[in-house]
Amino acid sequence: MDLFSSTVQHWLDLAGIFVFAISGALLAVRKNFDVVGMTVLAGVTALGGGLLRDLLIGAVPPAALTDLGYLLTPLAATALVFFLHPQVERINRAVMVFDAAGLGLFCVTGTVKAYEYGLGLTASVAMGLATAAGGGVLRDVLANEVPSLLRWDREIYAVPAVVGATAVVLLIRAEQLTAVTSGLAAALAFVLRLLALRYGWRAPRAWRRRSQSAEEA
Amino acid sequence: MDLFSSTVQHWLDLAGIFVFAISGALLAVRKNFDVVGMTVLAGVTALGGGLLRDLLIGAVPPAALTDLGYLLTPLAATALVFFLHPQVERINRAVMVFDAAGLGLFCVTGTVKAYEYGLGLTASVAMGLATAAGGGVLRDVLANEVPSLLRWDREIYAVPAVVGATAVVLLIRAEQLTAVTSGLAAALAFVLRLLALRYGWRAPRAWRRRSQSAEEA
Amino acid sequence: MDLFSSTVQHWLDLAGIFVFAISGALLAVRKNFDVVGMTVLAGVTALGGGLLRDLLIGAVPPAALTDLGYLLTPLAATALVFFLHPQVERINRAVMVFDAAGLGLFCVTGTVKAYEYGLGLTASVAMGLATAAGGGVLRDVLANEVPSLLRWDREIYAVPAVVGATAVVLLIRAEQLTAVTSGLAAALAFVLRLLALRYGWRAPRAWRRRSQSAEEA
Repeated sequence: MDLFSSTVQHWLDLAGIFVFAISGALLAVRKNFDVVGMTVLAGVTALGGGLLRDLLIGAVPPAALTDLGYLLTPLAATALVFFLHPQVERINRAVMVFDAAGLGLFCVTGTVKAYEYGLGLTASVAMGLATAAGGGVLRDVLANEVPSLLRWDREIYAVPAVVGATAVVLLIRAEQLTAVTSGLAAALAFVLRLLALRYGWRAPRAWRRRSQSAEEA
Repeated sequence: MDLFSSTVQHWLDLAGIFVFAISGALLAVRKNFDVVGMTVLAGVTALGGGLLRDLLIGAVPPAALTDLGYLLTPLAATALVFFLHPQVERINRAVMVFDAAGLGLFCVTGTVKAYEYGLGLTASVAMGLATAAGGGVLRDVLANEVPSLLRWDREIYAVPAVVGATAVVLLIRAEQLTAVTSGLAAALAFVLRLLALRYGWRAPRAWRRRSQSAEEA
Repeated sequence: MDLFSSTVQHWLDLAGIFVFAISGALLAVRKNFDVVGMTVLAGVTALGGGLLRDLLIGAVPPAALTDLGYLLTPLAATALVFFLHPQVERINRAVMVFDAAGLGLFCVTGTVKAYEYGLGLTASVAMGLATAAGGGVLRDVLANEVPSLLRWDREIYAVPAVVGATAVVLLIRAEQLTAVTSGLAAALAFVLRLLALRYGWRAPRAWRRRSQSAEEA
């Protein structure tokens, strides 16, 4: 199913990979890693979600290893952060916006690809979430940090991805998935994430937790 | 090879997934994660071992993504912990017993499935261990904790799983694997784990370690 | 493509697996893990890079699960460290040299195998790096440490692997890959790693980082 012309789709993919790679390289700099650490974190953040999805749905070898553009884009992002780190940090707000755009794009394309490989609707939503958020989780695990996806003191990231992915499967069920409607699903996830960042939306924690963590004090 | 009637097998699987998911959701609450973190940890703990095994033996897409019950059970466990966390913590002892039952069940079914996919006896034992213990290791890695499977100050978990898996391959070799004997192998792992919990059985550390860790003080 | 007689290749593989397993078991002792932790870390360090590569290129089930020697070698290394830990620590310098040999060997065999499975030259280099360094990264992640591959205060490890892997793809492109030339590529990576250890070669960090870490003080 070609949602967009495949050229447009490909350039959107590369743009999403680029901004995810930037976020990986920036975390590597904050963790004081060297250029190898920057490259690895950039590559894992940008390609990890799609790799995970492709392994799970049986699309092997994964797109990340068969498309040269996918492999080289994280290297370009690493070079940019390597030489212009202070400038990239300064536009961190813009990076967050582009990251939200990548989130919207990847939760839609991940869900569609999983469905095309024969998964059910619920599993396809899970794969949409894995595509959008898996790279960031792998980035945090490699950097030996608690994944920001799991923390209560971070603005919601998984919820917009699940909403966008759910919109896609509802559209599939209604046989209304087109370039326009899938673009709207991506925009929905994108806008939800921006609103979450703007208004500090967080997900709730368990009711009446007895164990109070030091973080809360 | 249908060890049990497939309906019984399926309900046992769901019960094992449920208790593993509970343990993931409880760790998420202790780590002060939000409901997203609870859901992710519950899902990874419950399904991660089977996913890992299925990827390694080439059973793709994995059972965890093709059976709707496998996907929804961790959500139910998360909801339970979300609303009734103090009550679930209070019956933690019962949770440990059910977890031991899951360990016994999964080390047997994991070994059998790996063997059915053509792996050798030794590799099948390794896959039985991966099925039973892999989800817990992924849970601890995502929560940024040292995996409790590796720690010397925890009661043995891998040993009962390896014993149960080894019993299965010996039964396969002797052509004596039936519903009854595989149930006995699962019971063996289950009872060993309960005894380990009851009597504080631990695995030894290397002889004459020179480096004494602070944990020992 | 049989680079060496397959018997020689097999013994070299086992030797590389053995030294990687030693490094995993030694880290487990330093982290105060029990014999289960030693076995798991030894196995993951020794086999993890090849497992990762085989999953990504679609060589399933992976060689690590179909060759009994691959499975038993980490157990032998664990037994050695378990009983003779102080002696093994004392020859740590020799272990580093053998580890560098494993690095050279695996970056070459990993690149060749990925190319044989149809990957492009750039992706094959990435798989060569994953084969040589992936096990060590998994070892550090499981031990809840920052992967030494990413740290600026460690001698370069990825760079020799990438140089060796790149030499292999250049040889493939020039149709000059033979047992002799691939041996030379492995030797190149091996010598680079030894020189890095001898002279403390490190990879650079990003230019003009503003955030100074405590590690640098």
